[in-house]
Amino acid sequence: MTAAANAADHLELGGCDTVELAREFGTPLYVFDEVTLRAQARRARDAFETRWNNSTLLYATKAYFSPFLADLYRDLELGLDVTSEGELEIARRADFDPARIYLHGNNKTHAEIRCALEMNVEHIVVDNPDEIPIIAALAHGLARSPRLLIRLSPDIDPHTHRYLTTGVADSKFGLGVANGEAERGYRAIARHSNLQVVGLHLHIGSQIFEVQAIVHALERALDLAADWRDRFGFELQELDIGGGWGVAYTPEQQSIPVDDLAENLCAALRAGLDTRALSPKVKLLLEPGRALIARAAVSLYRVGSIKTISAERTYASVDGGMGDNIRPALYGARYTARLANTFNAPTARAYAIAGRYCEQGDVLIDSIKLPTLERGDLLALPNAGAYQLPMASNYNLIPRPAVVLVRAGQARLLRRRETIDDMLACDLNPA
Amino acid sequence: MTAAANAADHLELGGCDTVELAREFGTPLYVFDEVTLRAQARRARDAFETRWNNSTLLYATKAYFSPFLADLYRDLELGLDVTSEGELEIARRADFDPARIYLHGNNKTHAEIRCALEMNVEHIVVDNPDEIPIIAALAHGLARSPRLLIRLSPDIDPHTHRYLTTGVADSKFGLGVANGEAERGYRAIARHSNLQVVGLHLHIGSQIFEVQAIVHALERALDLAADWRDRFGFELQELDIGGGWGVAYTPEQQSIPVDDLAENLCAALRAGLDTRALSPKVKLLLEPGRALIARAAVSLYRVGSIKTISAERTYASVDGGMGDNIRPALYGARYTARLANTFNAPTARAYAIAGRYCEQGDVLIDSIKLPTLERGDLLALPNAGAYQLPMASNYNLIPRPAVVLVRAGQARLLRRRETIDDMLACDLNPA
Repeated sequence: MTAAANAADHLELGGCDTVELAREFGTPLYVFDEVTLRAQARRARDAFETRWNNSTLLYATKAYFSPFLADLYRDLELGLDVTSEGELEIARRADFDPARIYLHGNNKTHAEIRCALEMNVEHIVVDNPDEIPIIAALAHGLARSPRLLIRLSPDIDPHTHRYLTTGVADSKFGLGVANGEAERGYRAIARHSNLQVVGLHLHIGSQIFEVQAIVHALERALDLAADWRDRFGFELQELDIGGGWGVAYTPEQQSIPVDDLAENLCAALRAGLDTRALSPKVKLLLEPGRALIARAAVSLYRVGSIKTISAERTYASVDGGMGDNIRPALYGARYTARLANTFNAPTARAYAIAGRYCEQGDVLIDSIKLPTLERGDLLALPNAGAYQLPMASNYNLIPRPAVVLVRAGQARLLRRRETIDDMLACDLNPA
Repeated sequence: MTAAANAADHLELGGCDTVELAREFGTPLYVFDEVTLRAQARRARDAFETRWNNSTLLYATKAYFSPFLADLYRDLELGLDVTSEGELEIARRADFDPARIYLHGNNKTHAEIRCALEMNVEHIVVDNPDEIPIIAALAHGLARSPRLLIRLSPDIDPHTHRYLTTGVADSKFGLGVANGEAERGYRAIARHSNLQVVGLHLHIGSQIFEVQAIVHALERALDLAADWRDRFGFELQELDIGGGWGVAYTPEQQSIPVDDLAENLCAALRAGLDTRALSPKVKLLLEPGRALIARAAVSLYRVGSIKTISAERTYASVDGGMGDNIRPALYGARYTARLANTFNAPTARAYAIAGRYCEQGDVLIDSIKLPTLERGDLLALPNAGAYQLPMASNYNLIPRPAVVLVRAGQARLLRRRETIDDMLACDLNPA
């Protein structure tokens, strides 16, 4: 949002010259723009709150989480969708309101459940029948009465990458509606006096560009809620319809506009509740991760070797790659890039942007038209905020990047670059 | 190699009961067997040394590297194929003979080249024309005369996974033979009095199961060496034909037997040198990584939730997954598994072995017949030694696993499990 070319024709983010940032903090560097971070969260929050008063956005921490983000989303009064002790611990240290934390996971450990209950996290999303007695026993031991949502496996194909499809019938996530697992789960929970089912949860996948697929899932959940009300007296207090809102990474894509999404979902929810004579007081929960954070960061890489291998094909290698961003190799994800040190230079030719890791698949962009590149140039890849840093590795024993936050011309280090000693901190050598 | 079922029908590795190891060190746990580690390295080393006296195996550190492995391969008199300051630093701390270290990389940084030269690493594998003047200048400043190998891009398709194919014409690696880049590189190096080309390098890819593809590449290199000798007086002192020897991960595959490989390669080299009247005194270099280490480790996971979603499909979730082993998601890599706590129980049904990460693609094994599983069972996945730990991430803020070494009934911790504080050590919160 704050991206602009400055007088030197350098890319500027949050009022900071990216060429200066790269010089000060080194590359690869991840730059988060505080204005974008806050604006994206506020816009999504307000889009839903204005249309559905009783709604909460749970930030999906798996997209990227850190102590700073915990503080930020706490202050913006979002909730959190978490899945590990690590994520719970960051939230705890940030004094995040546990009433706004929802524990997820297709294989929750005893330790995680206990940790959540001890922190007074009262919402747990049930993903398997066999975790029900474990939750009941741990809650009993700690004198807690957690409020449970049942994650449904609704058999809806959102037409995204196979790995990002979570709501199809053959999934490790959720309890099947068609095969009766969800109902058996409901009955199993009802047998524990310290547990109650307060809602249903659905998440049909990531990078969804068709609002209709999410509306379709919502209808399935409402059908089930009405059926359970009729047969068991179930009261749908909370409905979590997940996240996965598609984010554009290249000019050919178009992100789902959050106001359209909210408008469609809230209208469908209002009508759907009404049609089925369900209470309109249901709390609406949403779990965006990428949609809040992807656009808020840019990754900066220094161009190194440039090699023309044929008239059509030139590789420009940068000093990062699959170690800090595995998405192109893992999902075939596509990115765009701009030359940060001469932002408005005209494009001259196509380049493959290769990473520096010893692996053929380590190519960040297969082909992109850019100005003529030279060693030392600085490349900026937008939409770097989600699922890059959390999946970063020390492949080739290369330290993970530094992260800075920019705002109004000020840059602050959010994460220092790893050192070799950091990478070896857990290694022992008993020889 | 030391895997066996003990009296309790538990899987035993290096004389250690894996059920006890999991109890003592927690799961997921990576268990390296010292006997297998040493035997694989010795066997490969001897297979070549007995057939080609002047040969050196360079362990490809990207497969997995640690202080312990640096000591081990130093003692076994192997060399190292390294690609970063991190890998160089581990070698330096282990007092690894720099004459046996070869620096690689498609985008070597100034700092890496300087670090290598300062350490007296004298062999650098040139991967790009534009790194030649940089190496020359840095070597001049440090009064070094590095011996260079030119990495060739020979345009050979080894019929493996697209990401693992490195010797095809459209590759970020190497200097093209057909397009004249290799020759231009040779001429460029000749203009620097402090540099000399001592050899050629080839690496056609990973997981190669056809020895003939490697022989084919070798012939290309010898053709070029003969051509350059005739035209420029080039003396081929070293020939590095890379690694990539196929390793079987499932019973349907068969690893390349190292003796067959050595026999075929050395025979082809001998005949190829003779045919072209090239000196038989060439030093033969090989760069196995996976072939030395994959088989030497087993990953142990605890089974958690088990969910039957249809008559044909049951998911058993374990406490690791794509965070410690991204190979199934990244390459479609296939694995096998055994039940470690009742090793010889008869198989009962097919399971999908799912990981615990919040992602649909996090499935370690799509379908495998196993005995009936129960929560708390311990699963052992063999061939865990290569490209798992080095590519491990903190996705979902889950700590990376512990690593133990077993030998003769003794287990020693090689890498302690990360803690939440370790994961957050680089995070700052300026707010």
